Amino acid sequence: MERETNYEDQRVSIGSFVLESGKVLEEVELAYERVGPKEAPVILVCHALTGNQYTVGRSEDGWWEGLIGHRKFVDTSEFQVITFNVLGGCNGSTGPLSLDPSRNRPYQADFPFVSVRDMVHSQKRALEALGIDRLHAVIGGSLGGMQVLEWGILYPDIMEHLVPLAVTPSLSAYGIAYNAISRHAITKDPEWRGGYYDHAHPPAAGLATARMIGMISYRTDEMFQKKFGRKVIGKPEDQHTEAAYDVESYLKYQGQKLVGRFDANSYLYLLKAMDHHDITRGRDGTSPIKKIKANVLAISFKGDLIYPPKDLENVFNLESMAQFYIVDTKYGHDGFLVEFEKWGPLIKERLKEPSKI
Amino acid sequence: MERETNYEDQRVSIGSFVLESGKVLEEVELAYERVGPKEAPVILVCHALTGNQYTVGRSEDGWWEGLIGHRKFVDTSEFQVITFNVLGGCNGSTGPLSLDPSRNRPYQADFPFVSVRDMVHSQKRALEALGIDRLHAVIGGSLGGMQVLEWGILYPDIMEHLVPLAVTPSLSAYGIAYNAISRHAITKDPEWRGGYYDHAHPPAAGLATARMIGMISYRTDEMFQKKFGRKVIGKPEDQHTEAAYDVESYLKYQGQKLVGRFDANSYLYLLKAMDHHDITRGRDGTSPIKKIKANVLAISFKGDLIYPPKDLENVFNLESMAQFYIVDTKYGHDGFLVEFEKWGPLIKERLKEPSKI
Repeated sequence: MERETNYEDQRVSIGSFVLESGKVLEEVELAYERVGPKEAPVILVCHALTGNQYTVGRSEDGWWEGLIGHRKFVDTSEFQVITFNVLGGCNGSTGPLSLDPSRNRPYQADFPFVSVRDMVHSQKRALEALGIDRLHAVIGGSLGGMQVLEWGILYPDIMEHLVPLAVTPSLSAYGIAYNAISRHAITKDPEWRGGYYDHAHPPAAGLATARMIGMISYRTDEMFQKKFGRKVIGKPEDQHTEAAYDVESYLKYQGQKLVGRFDANSYLYLLKAMDHHDITRGRDGTSPIKKIKANVLAISFKGDLIYPPKDLENVFNLESMAQFYIVDTKYGHDGFLVEFEKWGPLIKERLKEPSKI
Repeated sequence: MERETNYEDQRVSIGSFVLESGKVLEEVELAYERVGPKEAPVILVCHALTGNQYTVGRSEDGWWEGLIGHRKFVDTSEFQVITFNVLGGCNGSTGPLSLDPSRNRPYQADFPFVSVRDMVHSQKRALEALGIDRLHAVIGGSLGGMQVLEWGILYPDIMEHLVPLAVTPSLSAYGIAYNAISRHAITKDPEWRGGYYDHAHPPAAGLATARMIGMISYRTDEMFQKKFGRKVIGKPEDQHTEAAYDVESYLKYQGQKLVGRFDANSYLYLLKAMDHHDITRGRDGTSPIKKIKANVLAISFKGDLIYPPKDLENVFNLESMAQFYIVDTKYGHDGFLVEFEKWGPLIKERLKEPSKI
């Protein structure tokens, strides 16, 4: 990877912050990555559930480095790209791991519930603190896509382009179901201790189960079959606790891997924010989509189990706005993290377009 | 429900039984339900993972009473219907709950692994003990359908009809994945204790999580959306441990309900048998399907996430045998437990057909 010359890995303070619920968080900070020339137009990236601010990455690979970087589809020599770790996250932004200033100990389960709208408002405040009042585009998939939709509705006048990927206008019953099971697995792990666990003894088994549940929703049965088939790695009938099939080993590995890098409480708070995602929630009759003024490029992925393409297509079609694409893929939901050559060019072209506002 | 006049709820002993693994189970018993006139042709029903021998039912509703019973699609005045609780089950047949005669205590995790073929062979032995050597049909869905396929391959000369439903010739990587997560949830529950749990303190949370994981694979996203939508039953943002949405409450209820009626070890053994299901396993080159002599009526259900219709269709199409139907449904896999009017007539007609052998 070519080293990015303009790279910032920082936190920005936004002080006291009032949540949608009316609760107030004090001394709020958002951690961010900022890459590219400071004078260039700003592209804001919103990350997914287990993502973070390291979109482009430097010492480690960024999670979207196949899309964004020097001479990539989103070129960091033409644009500056900013990604905040979400409010409630566990990569440096204020969340359950942060010190509660009123009690001088980590919030843990005392952290207030946050919504996708809270994430967006806090990012707006953080951008102001950085002296940024105009965005060329807001881009993100999954939980990131939820933020993109809310950005367009809450702050319609400040961006030229919106690119929501692998998302729907509200989380479906099926999506809530997956989250509910993940939540059940974590909160029933005795190590969770009502959320007040010792950091040396997190609810590892529950979080691993939750991650495994996530993994099966992110890719299609076809992709699982192609990648793993019925390949045996142990004696299939040997015991209940060791992986017998390749696919089982893979899922367990993914579960363990997340435990090493993610806070279980943070996972729970973000699941709740996702459940709660519904662009019509608390908004009166007219479609909130109509508030969007930006050019919208909406991208869905074939076979996405939780975010069916038609749900994203329908909401924009109703208003005859947005260009909509379904990417033909075997990956399903995870399509927004792979095969950039299939859909990266759409974004590249879109970002060249002048503002309509 | 009209009371069945010929109803037997019994156990049959088959003595010492050698498993596919070479291990031997002593004093094996299979619990069964037998309904209908003793002189009538026999229809053997094979049950699914959390099913049992109470297909028709008497004091309680049978799980297939919409299909089978007096004047139903499978008419118990014309046929006698026998269902065994599977080997390894927990409803009266020899399984992890049974007394290990060599140690005079329940097997628990000492129970040997059993395969779908073991289930079939043990049922054959049990039928012999009951003096039955001829079957008019073998019918079953899901794990029951796996048994149906193996019945046709292992004992091709004794039945006229096979009706496998909602099944595939082998469990896919995606199917193994769901099972792996369920297994992870149970075995990581500290109450599981390596399988040697006190019956008063079973791994309830793990088994409930496993059941919830099963439930999301049994029905389609469309059905979840139709049934639950985003209906709120609590404060969505209130806490992590109480259900906020209707769908979450439903899943938790289903999880708890299974804990009350099913043994966690038994669940684990049956998951393993399912993982291991592959009609080609250990069999040489030619398609094992070719060994089947019975008339086959194969029925799949649209949107079945784990048992895709095309996989069942393909295996029979290759040999130009079997009639194959895809039932148009919103239920997905669970289609074989509902909407009997859609596909019950196919079975009714089929059972009228004379033998071709």
